[in-house]
Amino acid sequence: MRERALHAVAECRHLATMTEEPGRITRRFLTPPVHDVHAHFGSRMHAKGMSTRVDAAGNLRGIWQPQGLSGKRMILGSHIDTVPDAGAFDGILGVTLALELVGIAQEDALPLAIEVIAFSEEEGVRFGVPFIGSRAVAGRFDSALLALQDTSGTTMEAAIREFGLNPGEINAAALDDETLGFLEIHIEQGPVLESEGLSVAAVTGIVGQSRLKVDFIGQANHAGTTPMHLRRDALAGAAEWVVEVEQQALRTEGLLATVGKIVTTPNAGNVIAGREQLILDVRHPHDAARLNAVDSLLSAANAIAERRTLALQSTCTLDQPAVSMDERLTAYLSESMEVEGFPGKRMPSGAGHDAMVMAGRVPAAMLFLQSPGGVSHNPAESVRDEDVEAALRVGRKFLERMAAGVL
Amino acid sequence: MRERALHAVAECRHLATMTEEPGRITRRFLTPPVHDVHAHFGSRMHAKGMSTRVDAAGNLRGIWQPQGLSGKRMILGSHIDTVPDAGAFDGILGVTLALELVGIAQEDALPLAIEVIAFSEEEGVRFGVPFIGSRAVAGRFDSALLALQDTSGTTMEAAIREFGLNPGEINAAALDDETLGFLEIHIEQGPVLESEGLSVAAVTGIVGQSRLKVDFIGQANHAGTTPMHLRRDALAGAAEWVVEVEQQALRTEGLLATVGKIVTTPNAGNVIAGREQLILDVRHPHDAARLNAVDSLLSAANAIAERRTLALQSTCTLDQPAVSMDERLTAYLSESMEVEGFPGKRMPSGAGHDAMVMAGRVPAAMLFLQSPGGVSHNPAESVRDEDVEAALRVGRKFLERMAAGVL
Repeated sequence: MRERALHAVAECRHLATMTEEPGRITRRFLTPPVHDVHAHFGSRMHAKGMSTRVDAAGNLRGIWQPQGLSGKRMILGSHIDTVPDAGAFDGILGVTLALELVGIAQEDALPLAIEVIAFSEEEGVRFGVPFIGSRAVAGRFDSALLALQDTSGTTMEAAIREFGLNPGEINAAALDDETLGFLEIHIEQGPVLESEGLSVAAVTGIVGQSRLKVDFIGQANHAGTTPMHLRRDALAGAAEWVVEVEQQALRTEGLLATVGKIVTTPNAGNVIAGREQLILDVRHPHDAARLNAVDSLLSAANAIAERRTLALQSTCTLDQPAVSMDERLTAYLSESMEVEGFPGKRMPSGAGHDAMVMAGRVPAAMLFLQSPGGVSHNPAESVRDEDVEAALRVGRKFLERMAAGVL
Repeated sequence: MRERALHAVAECRHLATMTEEPGRITRRFLTPPVHDVHAHFGSRMHAKGMSTRVDAAGNLRGIWQPQGLSGKRMILGSHIDTVPDAGAFDGILGVTLALELVGIAQEDALPLAIEVIAFSEEEGVRFGVPFIGSRAVAGRFDSALLALQDTSGTTMEAAIREFGLNPGEINAAALDDETLGFLEIHIEQGPVLESEGLSVAAVTGIVGQSRLKVDFIGQANHAGTTPMHLRRDALAGAAEWVVEVEQQALRTEGLLATVGKIVTTPNAGNVIAGREQLILDVRHPHDAARLNAVDSLLSAANAIAERRTLALQSTCTLDQPAVSMDERLTAYLSESMEVEGFPGKRMPSGAGHDAMVMAGRVPAAMLFLQSPGGVSHNPAESVRDEDVEAALRVGRKFLERMAAGVL
């Protein structure tokens, strides 16, 4: 099993050379290096006796059908696109591990059909919309998306044609009903498992997310001639609120609240700020708790603005409900972890994943493995061999349970 | 006197049409509209029987020498350059009022020689260095400045030549010893006089100023996957400090402390800030109090950074001592205000002015008049007729005292 883990890691390093930008890993939706990734994974699939196709959304799909077996199939996979200047494991590790699990299932003569999907798009970089691949597979692809343009003015429809596919056939990418469920293996992209000394965790769900644009509006003025008590300093008001946002999140179990973007006008050292625009990101596994937090934080902002005679404007730009993973499949994952001697750690995912979209169509589960340093979306992203091996061992037991459930 | 006030205001409005940018008031050092301003003021000076010259630093200088009078002369003036998209009164009002005061002195047959100086440069816009005109007059012009380039690559030396002047003669712009002192009349550019219902104030000095670049350095991370207690959020730390800066300034008599510029890296809504760079501006009439405040604010920043495991870097980019106005001349101003029925209000200037540079060479005084709304460096900048009249009445009494002091 260690050998398979090492092979999967080496494969990710090799696939990292298939990039739009030499020296950096950047592989956006249906750009030329995606052909290379398809060729690589396609030939590995053929070598395993799998039938393959690339659907019209650019997803590479390979099916392993054990001889003489009929019935539904389990889907394994993750995405092969990346953010600009990415790491070597986000997404694509889940595809290489899916192929290793097919190999294991074949060695073990597991009576289970498996479809491996290398999703074409998850990060939302090229067209500003994420999950293009899994939307199509889940039958949730809105054809209006085809009109979106990338920064060079190419529409999604043209990009699909240029890749050699037919955008008119996207509906045929949708899953049939002969499916048991979906399992995605992915790096955590956060520091929780490392901080707890764990290799893997079963994901309970994808947390819901609110995003708000909040403006504190005061009066720009000369920093040398305006007495402190006559100021309407938008930055001072915004700063007070940023501290309050952090404090409230620290006090509230499960709440993540972040101000990561702040734009100051006029933003000059000798001018009191007239306007601050902040982006507030709020996440919580429970939608009611998330919406309560948003209300409470906006109330705090209003109170600060009122006390300081600032104006306040706020707009909600995202209100995305939490998505739960399937309880039965997640229990299979936890059991498999314990059978293999790992704690049955469960945790929510704070980031979106293809499993979130797939969960709308089939029972879905997700296995996280440790991200050293919590580093992701960064060339320094890494994995530890023992954690990759842990994921394979857990995946094997999980597939055994799926096969047993089928029989 | 009201008629002279109305004339001075009308003149400022007329001079505002002499601009680099039609529709906006922008008149940088030695740009073409400065020729128009010189022609206008030069002909007014000639009409008053004054002798005129433009020195090699571009200052227009006119001397009124009463017949049969010998002895030292009083200098009146302010600057004629502007910031981009300026108001109509910052600087140039002090020149028009100087000419009105010459007219008054002539009517009153005041036994006092007067030199009016229209300083060529105070705002520091074209070459990034302020007070070019008054530096030359005060004998503090460093010839290294001639090598500075504006944004189009023109050196200051070339700009002076293109204007028709000889940069080799700048030393001859320096004052001789036949001077009594300098008075500058200027709009306050702040809200203090308006908030106290006053027309004018005698300026006690120009406050000292420190400027610091302060960096809080944490760890950029995913806003959805990094638990609150594992964050090293540079923006949250910086925000805590911004609030502390404001609180300390509110608690400390005479202290102005402002964070008006903040640069966040990477500044994305879903990424915890990895680095915040802030500009801190600290002003106080007393240098020791200012330096104490800087120390105390940096200590607070260090304490915040340490508690949050952030790194802190700070650099002092400006440490400019306070400059006091001359006590005798300032007392003349206060007396003149009271004689004319105004409270003898004294206040520091939080902004730099030519009087600050001139104070290094001659006894200097400065009279502020109310800035409605505290608005300046803005097309909405204005003055009230009654305040302009007040400035002229006070100026007249002030010149009477100077003349009496001479006799």
